[in-house]
Amino acid sequence: MSLMTTDTTALESDVRSYSRSWPVVFDRAQGATMYAEDGTAYLDFFAGAGSLNYGHNNPHMKQVLLDYLSSDRVVHSLDMLTTARSEFLQTFSDNILKPRGLDHRVMFPGPGGANAVEAGLKLARKITGREAIVNFTNAFHGMTLGALSVTGNSMKRGGAGIPLVHATPMPYDDYFDDEHDVPDFLYLERLLEDAGSGLNEPAAVIVETLQGEGGINSARVEWLQGLAELCKKQDMLLIVDDIQMGCGRTGPFFSFEEAGIVPDIITLSKSISGYGLPLALTLVRPELDVFEPGEHNGTFRGFAPAFATGAETIRQYWSDDSLHKSTIAKGMVIEGAFNALVAKYPDANLISKGRGLARGLQFGESAKAGEVAKECFTRGLLVETSGPEDEVVKLLPPLTLTDEELNRGLDIIADSVATVLSA
Amino acid sequence: MSLMTTDTTALESDVRSYSRSWPVVFDRAQGATMYAEDGTAYLDFFAGAGSLNYGHNNPHMKQVLLDYLSSDRVVHSLDMLTTARSEFLQTFSDNILKPRGLDHRVMFPGPGGANAVEAGLKLARKITGREAIVNFTNAFHGMTLGALSVTGNSMKRGGAGIPLVHATPMPYDDYFDDEHDVPDFLYLERLLEDAGSGLNEPAAVIVETLQGEGGINSARVEWLQGLAELCKKQDMLLIVDDIQMGCGRTGPFFSFEEAGIVPDIITLSKSISGYGLPLALTLVRPELDVFEPGEHNGTFRGFAPAFATGAETIRQYWSDDSLHKSTIAKGMVIEGAFNALVAKYPDANLISKGRGLARGLQFGESAKAGEVAKECFTRGLLVETSGPEDEVVKLLPPLTLTDEELNRGLDIIADSVATVLSA
Amino acid sequence: MSLMTTDTTALESDVRSYSRSWPVVFDRAQGATMYAEDGTAYLDFFAGAGSLNYGHNNPHMKQVLLDYLSSDRVVHSLDMLTTARSEFLQTFSDNILKPRGLDHRVMFPGPGGANAVEAGLKLARKITGREAIVNFTNAFHGMTLGALSVTGNSMKRGGAGIPLVHATPMPYDDYFDDEHDVPDFLYLERLLEDAGSGLNEPAAVIVETLQGEGGINSARVEWLQGLAELCKKQDMLLIVDDIQMGCGRTGPFFSFEEAGIVPDIITLSKSISGYGLPLALTLVRPELDVFEPGEHNGTFRGFAPAFATGAETIRQYWSDDSLHKSTIAKGMVIEGAFNALVAKYPDANLISKGRGLARGLQFGESAKAGEVAKECFTRGLLVETSGPEDEVVKLLPPLTLTDEELNRGLDIIADSVATVLSA
Amino acid sequence: MSLMTTDTTALESDVRSYSRSWPVVFDRAQGATMYAEDGTAYLDFFAGAGSLNYGHNNPHMKQVLLDYLSSDRVVHSLDMLTTARSEFLQTFSDNILKPRGLDHRVMFPGPGGANAVEAGLKLARKITGREAIVNFTNAFHGMTLGALSVTGNSMKRGGAGIPLVHATPMPYDDYFDDEHDVPDFLYLERLLEDAGSGLNEPAAVIVETLQGEGGINSARVEWLQGLAELCKKQDMLLIVDDIQMGCGRTGPFFSFEEAGIVPDIITLSKSISGYGLPLALTLVRPELDVFEPGEHNGTFRGFAPAFATGAETIRQYWSDDSLHKSTIAKGMVIEGAFNALVAKYPDANLISKGRGLARGLQFGESAKAGEVAKECFTRGLLVETSGPEDEVVKLLPPLTLTDEELNRGLDIIADSVATVLSA
Repeated sequence: MSLMTTDTTALESDVRSYSRSWPVVFDRAQGATMYAEDGTAYLDFFAGAGSLNYGHNNPHMKQVLLDYLSSDRVVHSLDMLTTARSEFLQTFSDNILKPRGLDHRVMFPGPGGANAVEAGLKLARKITGREAIVNFTNAFHGMTLGALSVTGNSMKRGGAGIPLVHATPMPYDDYFDDEHDVPDFLYLERLLEDAGSGLNEPAAVIVETLQGEGGINSARVEWLQGLAELCKKQDMLLIVDDIQMGCGRTGPFFSFEEAGIVPDIITLSKSISGYGLPLALTLVRPELDVFEPGEHNGTFRGFAPAFATGAETIRQYWSDDSLHKSTIAKGMVIEGAFNALVAKYPDANLISKGRGLARGLQFGESAKAGEVAKECFTRGLLVETSGPEDEVVKLLPPLTLTDEELNRGLDIIADSVATVLSA
Repeated sequence: MSLMTTDTTALESDVRSYSRSWPVVFDRAQGATMYAEDGTAYLDFFAGAGSLNYGHNNPHMKQVLLDYLSSDRVVHSLDMLTTARSEFLQTFSDNILKPRGLDHRVMFPGPGGANAVEAGLKLARKITGREAIVNFTNAFHGMTLGALSVTGNSMKRGGAGIPLVHATPMPYDDYFDDEHDVPDFLYLERLLEDAGSGLNEPAAVIVETLQGEGGINSARVEWLQGLAELCKKQDMLLIVDDIQMGCGRTGPFFSFEEAGIVPDIITLSKSISGYGLPLALTLVRPELDVFEPGEHNGTFRGFAPAFATGAETIRQYWSDDSLHKSTIAKGMVIEGAFNALVAKYPDANLISKGRGLARGLQFGESAKAGEVAKECFTRGLLVETSGPEDEVVKLLPPLTLTDEELNRGLDIIADSVATVLSA
Repeated sequence: MSLMTTDTTALESDVRSYSRSWPVVFDRAQGATMYAEDGTAYLDFFAGAGSLNYGHNNPHMKQVLLDYLSSDRVVHSLDMLTTARSEFLQTFSDNILKPRGLDHRVMFPGPGGANAVEAGLKLARKITGREAIVNFTNAFHGMTLGALSVTGNSMKRGGAGIPLVHATPMPYDDYFDDEHDVPDFLYLERLLEDAGSGLNEPAAVIVETLQGEGGINSARVEWLQGLAELCKKQDMLLIVDDIQMGCGRTGPFFSFEEAGIVPDIITLSKSISGYGLPLALTLVRPELDVFEPGEHNGTFRGFAPAFATGAETIRQYWSDDSLHKSTIAKGMVIEGAFNALVAKYPDANLISKGRGLARGLQFGESAKAGEVAKECFTRGLLVETSGPEDEVVKLLPPLTLTDEELNRGLDIIADSVATVLSA
Repeated sequence: MSLMTTDTTALESDVRSYSRSWPVVFDRAQGATMYAEDGTAYLDFFAGAGSLNYGHNNPHMKQVLLDYLSSDRVVHSLDMLTTARSEFLQTFSDNILKPRGLDHRVMFPGPGGANAVEAGLKLARKITGREAIVNFTNAFHGMTLGALSVTGNSMKRGGAGIPLVHATPMPYDDYFDDEHDVPDFLYLERLLEDAGSGLNEPAAVIVETLQGEGGINSARVEWLQGLAELCKKQDMLLIVDDIQMGCGRTGPFFSFEEAGIVPDIITLSKSISGYGLPLALTLVRPELDVFEPGEHNGTFRGFAPAFATGAETIRQYWSDDSLHKSTIAKGMVIEGAFNALVAKYPDANLISKGRGLARGLQFGESAKAGEVAKECFTRGLLVETSGPEDEVVKLLPPLTLTDEELNRGLDIIADSVATVLSA
């Protein structure tokens, strides 16, 4: 299949988005590279928005997947018991949860991240008997009604068509300018402690430890620890949405590990299958596992081939700390490259952001970020922008990319920045 | 992999449901048969709750899928253009939409049915500027907050943990006892026309033409036509949720074809990939396609292998009307068998329900339905129950099952009913 | 004060309404007569929308009020104990509650009817832990957010500016055309009993036994009894809003007495002070009196002069059944006169409605009702219209009007109808 | 009437509150003094929670009221034109609005403050097409559903029985400890300007310039000016709730005059009738007067005797600035006395709060405030407490009290504080 297909965009809803930034038709992909129908190669620092942490069509999982499908193993079975499901659960428990001292139960809430968030919010409300959720500025948790209510972006919120309620936004770490020395939880803590504040008592706080869509905003370890303490003190559940930043994106498997906190509820999706197959998990502390059988159900609760590739991912990449370490090391390479750009263009008010392999370069003039992404595309590199004004060039390369690929991508970025800023 | 795996249910949330009815571990599956780890074969009249209309691991799509994956074609790419996406769109347009006189645009709202429903509801509200939705008694549309608001089941609604608002339930076709001759839309129409009724003006009506989870309640053609007319007259959008009943389940590709109506918005999922791969579509009349680019987004908006199998499904099964006809014919076989049971056990108040290959046998004493399903399982047949009191034995066999399989299943059901009713 | 004042309508908000129908400035009033500044007398069959059941400036209460105020008795004191408050409570208990076998506690929820409704709804929700309220088509309960949510009129609902939720409208008695023999609670009962109906479990039902604003729709005794039984059976609280129809408007003190039902919560206002002074009560069965001290408060909870006139009203009019009887008798006179008009103008599709001294004449062509009201005004009679299309000429004369006044008013109506229908 | 009445508290709902603090039955009142049934005199520094700014039974208004009622002037007439209404409107316009450069239109929203707030909120939402309201910590706006949503007190909010939504609390002036130098609108402004903040775009901000129920928290002039500017800049309406602090309580007629701001919507009630008669106004800038005729209505929209006394109040007290000046002067006397107590008891962490004749003495140990109020009562002085922990002794004496009464009251407070703090 290499002939150029006809243009089918007229058949699709105008809601399509990424196909506008990168108007070529992609056909094949391997590791950190995507190939358009005409054979042009693109270095992919976007990686399915964090869904392809192990690269495109990773050969380890590919073999497992082909074997699975070839043998007519069960593909679809709602939440019936299957061999693949059991193996995934055991592997995940043995290699991910137990070594980290976690005893959370695994819920399969549906095929995507929004399902995981919805299940977590429903559960928190059911457990506490309260309705309100504290979310953070520039949070992104999904497009279904419950998930959208705790998402910050005003354009996306407007799509709901009804007032989004039961959520109160609080300032994320480092939300205010440095000139104001506002203690981290000054506002939230004061509202919670004041019986006359008018804040509805929250069931839970939902937080990303590093906001990807929000502009690569990384919360400090001490901020996360403070938040966890506040939750305990105020009897609120702590939900960490690790859909984009989990599965090693920031280095450790869970993005909150460095902070040493134990969330009550954890959401995972995107790279959990390791191959781009739809899968999502909601992890729940055992004493909070209070849903009735079937109280939250769904069709694609556990897509068995994703169990097979997901288990293989864990075996391949999470039996030791080598991926963790290489992610940190590669992240430092990006940081170095970005810091060099920051220094080189003092008038552009560039800011280097992020940790691990979730990295951002923020531009003082927000339009520049989009221009740089466009320049990168013409040079064969896929990067997207994020942040409320799309002011950040966002890098989510496969964790498995080679040093050569990393350096090549960074060179393209440097060239693109030079082109845009000297224009 | 054929050794019995260890029991991993303790690692999973108690919310798991089907694994309670059928406590064996399934490993392989082919056509209408699933195989447990110990090799025991089960005839599957459940078919992934309607997600496997073409059977398990259908060889046509299997080959396409293996070829696709073997060639390192793009697996995951959010909503970027891919060859597979284009082919699916073109095939779907040429073979499904155009021949039926439909010019709807295709939106990929996320991987599962709830995403399709959420997108449809958001869009209807955005288009009309109204918040209220009319739904129907015993409707099932999904577990995310928006979809759950229009779902009937009280246990599932309770899981939300917040009051579900903006939806008003109206009586589905034949909701009242026959003794009361209530005209179909008496109540809804009167409320809509009365400026003092207190009904919030609806953005849309969402309806299943045959309620699967609700108990295999089939709306008559004239009722659906009346509803479509009422929507037009009252300026409400008509959303047909065809997630379970579309893709040929009732005979034609869309379940509303027989009624000759044209919904404004249509949701599809479950069998649209033809292989159990997560995929969902929201179809929208072109003049209603008003979302901004990216206003509704998501990670798994178009899982490319599902495009490949979905396109193959259409080529294999929807280029002529043979599947449509055989579905109708097989449905009549079930109807005949069920009618025989109704006649044989006059005291059990059995009712034969459904159309096409969505069939139900309702029991006067609701607990009997569950007992029959249990008996079927011991005899090697998988059937589930549905309805508000789980009073209906529900049959959703693969459309591609053989006559022998069909008759074998019906014999098991007859035996099981005999055992239960003579107990 | 008899000089014509300057026109001050430009100083007032355009929301003013009655001053548009009757564009004269009233200055004095006595019994059933209001006097404009120029001395013109108007027979008042409107009576403050039911707030002046004992006529304007009734001499009995006038003397009590003047004495009270002259002696510097307490006028305002929030909910502190006052002699006037105690006397009112004792008089109300001894003469109204006890003789009717009621042991409800009296709550003073604020100065007006909407406060009484809001307190009742809040209490019902607090008691049951549920949010939903069942209200009826064409109900009117007030303009504050909670009361407006259970009010039918779409124009008034639109004024809220937010979606009004937590209320589900059900058909009031005789809502459907006679041709359809729909049992009274067919729909509500079915939804309540069906675990899959999608109806949120209601905290309470709120009902007027005769809808004044809704078009003088009188519920039958057996309908009210059926509703009370349904509430008991389904564990919903029954709230009777007797703000307009209580205080003898339909004959007995409470409008529900004839039906022999005992509401859990009763609201009273309008004529409870007997003199047009703002006062409102929420009556609550003692076991449901669960508000904490001060949990619902307010400034004008018990305006002491209104206690004084209210107590006098009870002593004067409710120590025997003479007012009750005369109200019934006068109501029959109106019914006779209206029936004569119905017979005289068969093409006008007139309908005589109501009971006691809450009466309506409905016109087939809704605009005619307004024309008749206008004609009445030019002939010196004040009557308003009601109903969703303002299709009903509504009569709420003082219960204390003389037979001569009644007949004079009815003659004016007959003349006005003649003028309008022969035009 | 001087015999002790029987105890009727058992007939009343347990929600009663003030009668618990002051368990005597009051019968008469004059100026700043209330008399119990046994003749005991109590100096009243509570004044109907600010409803009796001109004292009990002020002789000027008393004469007007007796004349009005004696002459059978119209008492009740919904919103029909009456001589009294016109006179009030003209007097209010000529003496209050025009001299202050205000051209607001007067809406009569119902008899009490909550009606005024509800009308204001509805109007703001209708004008802007937005639902969200920004309110402030420790705000108090009333008990009906809309007003309660923007009220801070958690106990009162809990009474709603449904989640209160569409309101986001922001920190009132000086909400944070002095140690943190948080700029006034840092948080609100940042959320409003950030398209990703997740804050629903507000229709309006509702604010008290001095929070009475919230604990006598007085906003600074520059904070109010900053808020008004922010509203203008961000296109939000500014609603000042002047129900308790208007009518001269802080000195000028409107409490916001000193700040030189012009609110879009102003609510008034409590002392607007000048005699404790229920009356409420919602003032609206003429270009925002967009309600349809009757879109917000109600029974007690303009209680005519209250118009008569209200007009007299304006004539007597607001034709020159003498009341304004004396209020400021008396307020300084209280401030002096409180400052002396603060200095005398350094360990008690007393804080002197308020301005004009809205004054508070805050106790470091909140229970002490209640003990002081109790001691005051035994010494013949009525004062209440306020604040989220009832930690403030709150003084709202009649503006018309004499210097002797003021000093006598302050002496009682000093004695009571001494008793409590030395205990």
